[in-house]
Amino acid sequence: AEVKKIAVIAGDGIGPEVVAEAEKVMKRVEEVFGYAFETEHARFGGIAIDEDGTPLPEETLRICKSADAVLLGAVGGPKWDSNPKELRPETGLLAIRKELGLFSNLRPAVVFDCLKDASTLKPEVLEGTDLMVVRELTGGIYFGEKFRREGQHGQEAVDTCVYNETEVERIVRQAFEVAGKRRKKLASVDKANVLETSRLWREVVNRIAPEYPEIEVEHVLVDNCAMQLLRRPASFDVIVTENMFGDILSDEAAMLTGSIGMLSSASLGEGSFGLYEPVHGSAPDIAGQQLANPIATILSLALMFRMTFGYSDAADAIEKAVAEVLDAGHRTSDIAVDKSTAIETSAMGDLIVSAI
Amino acid sequence: AEVKKIAVIAGDGIGPEVVAEAEKVMKRVEEVFGYAFETEHARFGGIAIDEDGTPLPEETLRICKSADAVLLGAVGGPKWDSNPKELRPETGLLAIRKELGLFSNLRPAVVFDCLKDASTLKPEVLEGTDLMVVRELTGGIYFGEKFRREGQHGQEAVDTCVYNETEVERIVRQAFEVAGKRRKKLASVDKANVLETSRLWREVVNRIAPEYPEIEVEHVLVDNCAMQLLRRPASFDVIVTENMFGDILSDEAAMLTGSIGMLSSASLGEGSFGLYEPVHGSAPDIAGQQLANPIATILSLALMFRMTFGYSDAADAIEKAVAEVLDAGHRTSDIAVDKSTAIETSAMGDLIVSAI
Ligand SMILES: CC(C)[C@H](C(=O)O)[C@@H](O)C(=O)O
Ligand SMILES: CC(C)[C@H](C(=O)O)[C@@H](O)C(=O)O
Repeated sequence: AEVKKIAVIAGDGIGPEVVAEAEKVMKRVEEVFGYAFETEHARFGGIAIDEDGTPLPEETLRICKSADAVLLGAVGGPKWDSNPKELRPETGLLAIRKELGLFSNLRPAVVFDCLKDASTLKPEVLEGTDLMVVRELTGGIYFGEKFRREGQHGQEAVDTCVYNETEVERIVRQAFEVAGKRRKKLASVDKANVLETSRLWREVVNRIAPEYPEIEVEHVLVDNCAMQLLRRPASFDVIVTENMFGDILSDEAAMLTGSIGMLSSASLGEGSFGLYEPVHGSAPDIAGQQLANPIATILSLALMFRMTFGYSDAADAIEKAVAEVLDAGHRTSDIAVDKSTAIETSAMGDLIVSAI
Repeated sequence: AEVKKIAVIAGDGIGPEVVAEAEKVMKRVEEVFGYAFETEHARFGGIAIDEDGTPLPEETLRICKSADAVLLGAVGGPKWDSNPKELRPETGLLAIRKELGLFSNLRPAVVFDCLKDASTLKPEVLEGTDLMVVRELTGGIYFGEKFRREGQHGQEAVDTCVYNETEVERIVRQAFEVAGKRRKKLASVDKANVLETSRLWREVVNRIAPEYPEIEVEHVLVDNCAMQLLRRPASFDVIVTENMFGDILSDEAAMLTGSIGMLSSASLGEGSFGLYEPVHGSAPDIAGQQLANPIATILSLALMFRMTFGYSDAADAIEKAVAEVLDAGHRTSDIAVDKSTAIETSAMGDLIVSAI
């Protein structure tokens, strides 16, 4: 098979440990399915700040741009939190999204059977919850002009939220496509009773909707959505929304499943290129101790195989292997009910590899 | 006693029914405590659009401005949802907040014992939840410049989020004061890793904090807060945040208590003037049928007595009366487990009046 190039960014905290397990899975997939991957490692986030003096080195960008897909562990940590803006991991995150044109962030929020008790929601409310937040990732108030000025009332700070029709169209279309492959329900979230960008957003959704007659569309105000996610999470299928609302709602949705440590995500642009990463953060408190759970990263790799390479056989096999290992009762400490039986990061990776 | 002037805005949907019960309570308080209230009714929202051609008539503004406090039922409904902007109830809401200088919205989220099963959260997670969201109400992206323009990629929409130091200071100070009268914990919510307005916000909080050494302050990013509200609601005391984040988080917080139909709110400015209203909306589907629950409005009146007039005796008596009536098992249909035993709106009002 054609050799696929994967840029591998381990990042900070538990990033290197979880990514190492995903790389084992990659090798296993080469053996079992005959696919061929070439990996190139790159520095990004806190470690790049320390070693290269910038969160997103040119070299890393070059490696990512020449790859077919990127696998990312996690970035950030308290060490860099009070740095000036240009020397913060988040700044690198925003820059890599913009530079790679990753305008769409897909965040599936599903309930893992073995974790349903970990949710703070009642099991009967959670029953059947399986939703996907499609978040716009390179526009809105994240990327609009920001500045300070002196005013009559002391300093004044300004952030600008901007969206144009093309930007809204491409993310909305993608959400319709995603919904078409799922339960065919799309909730578009905005604040059209207050924001001009939301009114444009809603107009675009209404203009595109007739092209997808099989998809049932509802408009939900963002405040109401924050409530409905709690009241009727299972009723949502695909939620599409702008950058800032997506940041808040995708985290709320992930948390209510109780499975946040196991969730994967994909950031996509035009074409098949994508960046895949676990939803959980860098967890610096447990880093380097083989305590981290590699499953979200391994599932992010499965998502890459399915979405970027079209290797559904490999993706299916990985997901099946994860389910098998969990069904057999194996747990890392974050998800173990009895911590004394918990296995290490690498042991979990090895078990999944063997199950493929 | 000095006569206090109360502007009464019944509004739309169930507004008139719930406000009528609060007015009974007002009369009862006059009899029992010897206070004197003078009420003046005003039109606002949908009904004002229909009868006066504007959601906020001059006359209504005049009545509110000459009053010591405002009691509001609820506004809005599908009838006016597709109206042009100037003829929408929300536009009136934003205008009244600005015109009356109501820069602070206090939204207590508490769990009512009789409703704790109504929450979708597990009872053990909810245990002890009693928080207050202090939302900035007249600044930020709600009131910044908004416009459309033609760009290279079709129409472009712009919203501007602006905060100055004075605006942030007054709301933050108020939140510190509120926290001082409660459990002395303040969570300031922002998105300082992305937004300039949030960085200003955080600076102001850090500058003011030393003046309140007894208050424990934490900074929480808005996405993280949306998660922590689900994971550890009882750990929050006072949450202070800007307008848009406050809109989303106060609704999330209200919903997780399961008591949303019973929650009151206060919108305050400089001095003692305030506008008090239930958190629930106008519920047009059940309007005019004596099905609505008047408790949130009655508790909003109690909040007015306490916060604007300093009549804690009356406020305590109302809150005690509500608790007694609930303890005796009386329920309107929204909170009745067995709907066939539910009592009407006015019967609930009468019971509370008798218990004062
Ligand atoms: C770190 C931060 C800038 C980032 C965001 O807000 O986009 C993060 O919260 C995320 O969701 O990926
Ligand atoms: C109706 C709307 C403009 C309003 C707001 O967003 O402020 C409402 O959601 C609220 O919270 O009072």
